[in-house]
Amino acid sequence: MNIALIGAGNVATHLGRKLTEVGEEVVQVFSRNAQKAKQLADELKAGFTADLGQIVDSADIYIIAVNDDAIGSVAERLESNGLTNKLIVHTSGATPMAVFYNTAPNLQKVGVFYPLQSFSKIRPADFGKIPICIDARDLEDQQLLEKLAQKLSPHVYAVNDGKRAVLHLAAVFVNNFTNHLYQIGHNLLETADLPFELLMPLIQETVAKLNDGSPAAMQTGPAVRNDEATIRRHINLLEGEPQLQAIYRSLTNSIQTIP
Amino acid sequence: MNIALIGAGNVATHLGRKLTEVGEEVVQVFSRNAQKAKQLADELKAGFTADLGQIVDSADIYIIAVNDDAIGSVAERLESNGLTNKLIVHTSGATPMAVFYNTAPNLQKVGVFYPLQSFSKIRPADFGKIPICIDARDLEDQQLLEKLAQKLSPHVYAVNDGKRAVLHLAAVFVNNFTNHLYQIGHNLLETADLPFELLMPLIQETVAKLNDGSPAAMQTGPAVRNDEATIRRHINLLEGEPQLQAIYRSLTNSIQTIP
Repeated sequence: MNIALIGAGNVATHLGRKLTEVGEEVVQVFSRNAQKAKQLADELKAGFTADLGQIVDSADIYIIAVNDDAIGSVAERLESNGLTNKLIVHTSGATPMAVFYNTAPNLQKVGVFYPLQSFSKIRPADFGKIPICIDARDLEDQQLLEKLAQKLSPHVYAVNDGKRAVLHLAAVFVNNFTNHLYQIGHNLLETADLPFELLMPLIQETVAKLNDGSPAAMQTGPAVRNDEATIRRHINLLEGEPQLQAIYRSLTNSIQTIP
Repeated sequence: MNIALIGAGNVATHLGRKLTEVGEEVVQVFSRNAQKAKQLADELKAGFTADLGQIVDSADIYIIAVNDDAIGSVAERLESNGLTNKLIVHTSGATPMAVFYNTAPNLQKVGVFYPLQSFSKIRPADFGKIPICIDARDLEDQQLLEKLAQKLSPHVYAVNDGKRAVLHLAAVFVNNFTNHLYQIGHNLLETADLPFELLMPLIQETVAKLNDGSPAAMQTGPAVRNDEATIRRHINLLEGEPQLQAIYRSLTNSIQTIP
């Protein structure tokens, strides 16, 4: 398939590389930043443009991999470019497919192609392990997206707007919030002049244990033991850090009451 | 060295196995539960007892690996058994060495031998990766504990009561609290009839990224982007779940303000 890639950030870059690798053809890369567009386009042996008015009309599928808040305006431009019968998808977990109905109601063939991973510039993406969540207005497009996704990953899921919203929220808890807990641990150790690497085996083991049972079954620590003396000592240790105390209390309360 | 192991739970079991493996001799295992004591003792080719009054006086070191709240009473019993010139250590991250001064002031040679890991019954412990944090009242005992610890792990740290309290608090954040965030993710996905395995690659990547930079540098998501629309949508999705909303808010606030 001929693919137009709208965006040149982390998602567009890793997706573009993998699509090319499995034999799909990226025909054009768009970015508002012409240099970024050219750089990715060169790598993918594609054309490039920094002008949404110059998007090719020859692609089979248009993949919008831009910031969430720009998806609507890109869709509008594609609509006014007359691409109303082309398959147009976005890659966002946080954005409903309905964004297309609201901002570009004349687009007939729309969908979502959401690779559930936190991509970074410097780390290679292992698509073989990345779930791809797809959705489309039409069944035919859904099937086409499913086939395309299966070329990239064995883990393809049909996930509609409602489910994807919950999935994205869960991802915030296990990725963004977890990472912040790592930061808190990092900062605490710094105050005691201890290296963060002390915590790495524990962090890795916490994840590895998920293979043995549900997280609820794996819960340990003062909260689940109702060890109020330790909890009090910890809250006291966090004196002068009301935000950390709030996090400590909210998570402890939740551990003690959620089934 | 001859070692008396007081306790037969996860820490005692994994520690006892490793000590035996590196050529130390566990001479006796104590547990209030005679069957558990016998089972571990048999594995380690040691004697066993369920009576603290019958603890041998021939060991070079007594390792107390029992629940935090039982350490003081065990120390008291060892003191009244007359083991006042024997090296006695506990394995708890949450308990100060001072527990010995308070409950058994006649014990002369006391210390801490804290393997920083979350041990579980079914998973083997890879001591080569486990930091061991040691402390002792006397320098000579400190050096002895250091040598013993180095036989088990290349990662040995001298950590006093003040630092260990902070370390244990940090461990609660990155292990117990992180695991609870996994549970929340698990429960959210269940409400949407999605499998938890969808989140595993993201969870693993979040940890893997810690090799590339500090957690603060790796932070992504709506909070750090100040994406108030997504934050509002998430809070709304959590309607009827005040505890999850409290966690979401406390972590979001902290991400937005902590340097």
